[in-house]
Amino acid sequence: MADPEAVAKAFSDHYYNTFDSNRAALGSLYQETSILTFEGNKVQGAGAILQKLTSLPFQACQHKISSIDAQPSISGGLIVFVTGQLLPEGEANALKFSQIFHLAPVGNSFVITNDLFRLNYA
Amino acid sequence: MADPEAVAKAFSDHYYNTFDSNRAALGSLYQETSILTFEGNKVQGAGAILQKLTSLPFQACQHKISSIDAQPSISGGLIVFVTGQLLPEGEANALKFSQIFHLAPVGNSFVITNDLFRLNYA
Repeated sequence: MADPEAVAKAFSDHYYNTFDSNRAALGSLYQETSILTFEGNKVQGAGAILQKLTSLPFQACQHKISSIDAQPSISGGLIVFVTGQLLPEGEANALKFSQIFHLAPVGNSFVITNDLFRLNYA
Repeated sequence: MADPEAVAKAFSDHYYNTFDSNRAALGSLYQETSILTFEGNKVQGAGAILQKLTSLPFQACQHKISSIDAQPSISGGLIVFVTGQLLPEGEANALKFSQIFHLAPVGNSFVITNDLFRLNYA
C-alpha cells in the first residue's frame, strides 16, 4: 500500500468534506456488508447507513480534524482513527468526537467496511 | 464468532485490569507484527510495544470505561472501540481517552494486531 498516513489523510479530507457539503453522496463509500456504529447504534448496509447519516438532527455541520492515525490491517486494508470537533449549524459549542474507519481496497480506491463514531463528552 | 459485544467486553475487562495491575503482562497479548500508535507515535512488535507501555510517565493508574463498541472485521477478527477515563496515580484529574483494538483469532483466544490510543483533550 502507498504510505498509510497519506492515504488516511486523503480519505479523511474526502470523507469530511463530503459530509459537510453533500452528505447524501457518502453512500457510495459503503457497501452492503459495511457496518456503522453511531453512538452505540449499529446499522448495516450502504442504504441503512446513508439513512442514518442523513437523518441526524442537524442539516449542516462542519468537521475540524485534530488528529489522524493510520495502520495497515492484516486483511490488506487500512485502519484510520480520527479525532476532532463537530460543529452543527446553529450550535454555539463544538462537539468533540472520535471515529474509526476500516477501509478495504477495491481497485484503485477503497470502501468503508467498518465505521465507528463516538462523541467524547466533556 | 461469539457475540461481538460480549467478546469485546471480556477482552476490554481483561486488558484494562491487566494494564492497571500488572502492565508488564500485556506483552503476551501482542505479536511481532502488532502495531501500536500511542498519541501519534508508532511502534511495532510485542517487545517494542511493551517497552512503550511500561515506560509511560506514571507508575500506576486506573482506567474507567465509558463505552465499548464492537464490530466483526472482514478478516474474521474483531474491532473494539473503547472510550473512557485514565487516572494516573497522584493526578487530580482524569484524562479522557479513546482506544481502538483490532483482534485476530488465534485458537480459542485473540491477539492484538492493531492498537491505536489517543487522549481527548478538553
